[in-house]
Amino acid sequence: MFITCLDLEGVLIPEIWIAIAKYTKIPQLEITTREEPDYDKLMKKRIEILNVNNITLNEIQNIIKKMKPIQGAKKFLEWLHELSEIFILTDSYLEFAKPMVKALGNYGLFCHNLEINEKGKIIDYTLRLQNMKKLTVQKLHELNYVIIAVGDSYNDIAMLKEADFGLLFNPPENVRAEFSQFPSFFEYTELKKKIQEILKS
Amino acid sequence: MFITCLDLEGVLIPEIWIAIAKYTKIPQLEITTREEPDYDKLMKKRIEILNVNNITLNEIQNIIKKMKPIQGAKKFLEWLHELSEIFILTDSYLEFAKPMVKALGNYGLFCHNLEINEKGKIIDYTLRLQNMKKLTVQKLHELNYVIIAVGDSYNDIAMLKEADFGLLFNPPENVRAEFSQFPSFFEYTELKKKIQEILKS
Repeated sequence: MFITCLDLEGVLIPEIWIAIAKYTKIPQLEITTREEPDYDKLMKKRIEILNVNNITLNEIQNIIKKMKPIQGAKKFLEWLHELSEIFILTDSYLEFAKPMVKALGNYGLFCHNLEINEKGKIIDYTLRLQNMKKLTVQKLHELNYVIIAVGDSYNDIAMLKEADFGLLFNPPENVRAEFSQFPSFFEYTELKKKIQEILKS
Repeated sequence: MFITCLDLEGVLIPEIWIAIAKYTKIPQLEITTREEPDYDKLMKKRIEILNVNNITLNEIQNIIKKMKPIQGAKKFLEWLHELSEIFILTDSYLEFAKPMVKALGNYGLFCHNLEINEKGKIIDYTLRLQNMKKLTVQKLHELNYVIIAVGDSYNDIAMLKEADFGLLFNPPENVRAEFSQFPSFFEYTELKKKIQEILKS
């Protein structure tokens, strides 16, 4: 039996922080691990910027509600769910990811979570687990599943390596070049063909 | 972070084989592990009865499509999904369980599967894993989740023991008496209260 583990941002929906930066008109929120490689510093900075600007979780969730999945994502998942169990593995937070996952069709979600105070302010974040994506695939393996994993960036590579079949979707050129052992796809139709081939093998 | 693992038959939907027996008017299909404690013999007998009567998977899936979830199950799951990730763990088969899980709201599904021949006949079954329910809870534990498990019968007990909080829903009297360490609930409203209490603890 197959499980397909998919990254969320970049694979099924656009980047959430980019959307927040755009809607709030705070370009500082566009910073990513490219500009600030230390994830903890990056997240603390983001939380600080939100709080300086009095942006609550509720406002962010309203922005996320306006976001649209990448065109074709929902239909792709419906197609895939006929052939394989689907889990979405994201390094984002429950409070951000869940509304999007529901809009995509309510698949199983593995993620982290935020700490919210009584005023609805985001005060901290909690990583449920270090190396969450890789370890999730490992545990699903131990439950006797064959795993296909789909990601787009550095934080997906350990998951792709752990899976039986690792696939890149819409990777930036540097990720594609560095990890050329994983085939790259740029359209759901191509990705479908590859998955169909795997399922038949 | 919480995951609630729920058994399917008896907890969210009626027993599938009972429904098949009723619709096909083959009372022999009502046999359960009470009459035939050897599960392998039981399943082989069921498959034989289906094939003697020329009942294909397709026909069974049409029967399953007519089945209704237990009253209140869908709303209970919607309520629960706001507070906890939900996985459905069943010793039934993908081909039987998936249509019901979709009707319930598309939650993550862990199950076994059937072997179907080119004529659509069920020819065998495959247990993905022995002790699947218990092991699934164990692996989810290792992913740093707190687990609530809800079941109704003997095949759920190992899962209930492995979980942080094991709850019985609609158990038969003998199961309730034998495993009185697990609180029993007979209405979703009672079960909701208990889960709310756990989530707040």
